[in-house]
Amino acid sequence: MTTVLKTRLPLIQGALAQISTAGLVVAVSKAGGLGVLTTTGLDEDGLAAQIAAVRTQTAAPFAVNLMLQQANIPELLAYLLAHPVPVVTTSAGSPKRFVTQLQAVGTQVVAVIPSVKVAQKMAALGVDALVAEGMESGGHIGTLTTMALVQQVTAAVDVPVFAAGGIYDVAGVRAAEALGAVGVQVGTAFLAAEETPISPAYQQALVAASDTSTVVTGHALGDAVRCLHNPLTDAYFAAEQQGATPEDLHALLDGSLAKAIAGDVTHGTLMAGQIAGRIAKIEPVAAIVQRLYPDER
Amino acid sequence: MTTVLKTRLPLIQGALAQISTAGLVVAVSKAGGLGVLTTTGLDEDGLAAQIAAVRTQTAAPFAVNLMLQQANIPELLAYLLAHPVPVVTTSAGSPKRFVTQLQAVGTQVVAVIPSVKVAQKMAALGVDALVAEGMESGGHIGTLTTMALVQQVTAAVDVPVFAAGGIYDVAGVRAAEALGAVGVQVGTAFLAAEETPISPAYQQALVAASDTSTVVTGHALGDAVRCLHNPLTDAYFAAEQQGATPEDLHALLDGSLAKAIAGDVTHGTLMAGQIAGRIAKIEPVAAIVQRLYPDER
Repeated sequence: MTTVLKTRLPLIQGALAQISTAGLVVAVSKAGGLGVLTTTGLDEDGLAAQIAAVRTQTAAPFAVNLMLQQANIPELLAYLLAHPVPVVTTSAGSPKRFVTQLQAVGTQVVAVIPSVKVAQKMAALGVDALVAEGMESGGHIGTLTTMALVQQVTAAVDVPVFAAGGIYDVAGVRAAEALGAVGVQVGTAFLAAEETPISPAYQQALVAASDTSTVVTGHALGDAVRCLHNPLTDAYFAAEQQGATPEDLHALLDGSLAKAIAGDVTHGTLMAGQIAGRIAKIEPVAAIVQRLYPDER
Repeated sequence: MTTVLKTRLPLIQGALAQISTAGLVVAVSKAGGLGVLTTTGLDEDGLAAQIAAVRTQTAAPFAVNLMLQQANIPELLAYLLAHPVPVVTTSAGSPKRFVTQLQAVGTQVVAVIPSVKVAQKMAALGVDALVAEGMESGGHIGTLTTMALVQQVTAAVDVPVFAAGGIYDVAGVRAAEALGAVGVQVGTAFLAAEETPISPAYQQALVAASDTSTVVTGHALGDAVRCLHNPLTDAYFAAEQQGATPEDLHALLDGSLAKAIAGDVTHGTLMAGQIAGRIAKIEPVAAIVQRLYPDER
């Protein structure tokens, strides 16, 4: 109970859309980090069930992620205000309308940010911590790298900053700390956890990945997403090259994360960060956390 | 005389095309780092004059950079074999044909690399050290970030690795060391040195830059270059969007670095890395080195 988020370790599990459900969250929180529930695709009842599943398995702190482009944020927020959780993390937008409401019910608010300007806005809102996420991360990304972003954010704001992007083991943790971060957020490394509910085919693609295996789709759509190179990304870049309309490009990508999760590694989007090249096998969450904080157990 | 490159500090000044001439090189080498002469635009006589200018001002180690896309590499190489320098750094290609020749005349060879695969190739050639350069760097870049690249390269090869990209002060140095690097290469921070022969307008643009001031041109040309956003980059992206031919795009960019150096910040390419946002003023090289290694003087 030593860190800003009341976890044993200054470690946040990155919200993994459609993936980081109760099983993974419980494993991370039990290991001393902050497990973070995805709410993508959940309604109020689904969220309630996920939270209940976490609470029945651990009393450790956990978080709920609100991806602010989701249409049903008001519904989910109302539930979280009536049934408070320890931490809410927000991404892809500003939690301006509800930071103080959440804090009033005892929930800490952590905002994921891609630049100094957004970090300063979030600090002014009074959020409890920031996650400065570099573009080596998997999934939806900005343009600044972890190395460039974290040191500029920590120099610009007084709020505790967690570094995200490219962090796999204690080397990454120490690098993040050198840049002024109080801790780290880790996403890609947890994709390779035994407790993570994605298909064996997706996990084996992570094991097979090298440092140069990721590409970034979606530039033409204003929604850059880092994922493993595969036939889908080839088709996407070919379509982009041929001047496909945004509708055509969306038709290729929409629903493709669910396909990857289900095991279709040809037509699916296998979200992953550049650090995927370091993943050598599928392991329990506890082993992944141990590699991040070997001296803390 | 404690480092692999026989410098007092494990610090390499990144080769700055058309910019890192004798004045800057001497200042860096005198401060304990490895100054690196650019050879862009130089013939044999020009290179001889630059080397002589360095040698008359310092006995400290320095390097000559060979950007291997230059047409006159055979001419420059012949000169360097006949008149050895302490270190040669190579970029944008493989020094395969001449590593052993240079080492036979007492020159250490350092290769700048963008991926694990290229690092392994260079290690197999027997180079003395590697610079693992992340895509937050200014100028010509690859796709991997410093955080993701350095830890994967240091895990894959036994050659000493210097980290480049996003390094501005001791925080960056310590982060690089945490990732397994023996030292750092710094480019953008030295652009803001008093000894650097670029126009005041270029230097003031660096001072004014924020973390998000850089963009990357040249994707369509297969030659990604990071530089400060300005009217030229706006014109470039507009042309790219409108389907301009490679010839049209080259017409916009060719010669534009020289324009920036001369002070045309509207039509010039102001090469700079993402760390430019940290540059607050123009200072002597010694002050920049002091900020990188505050405990070593």
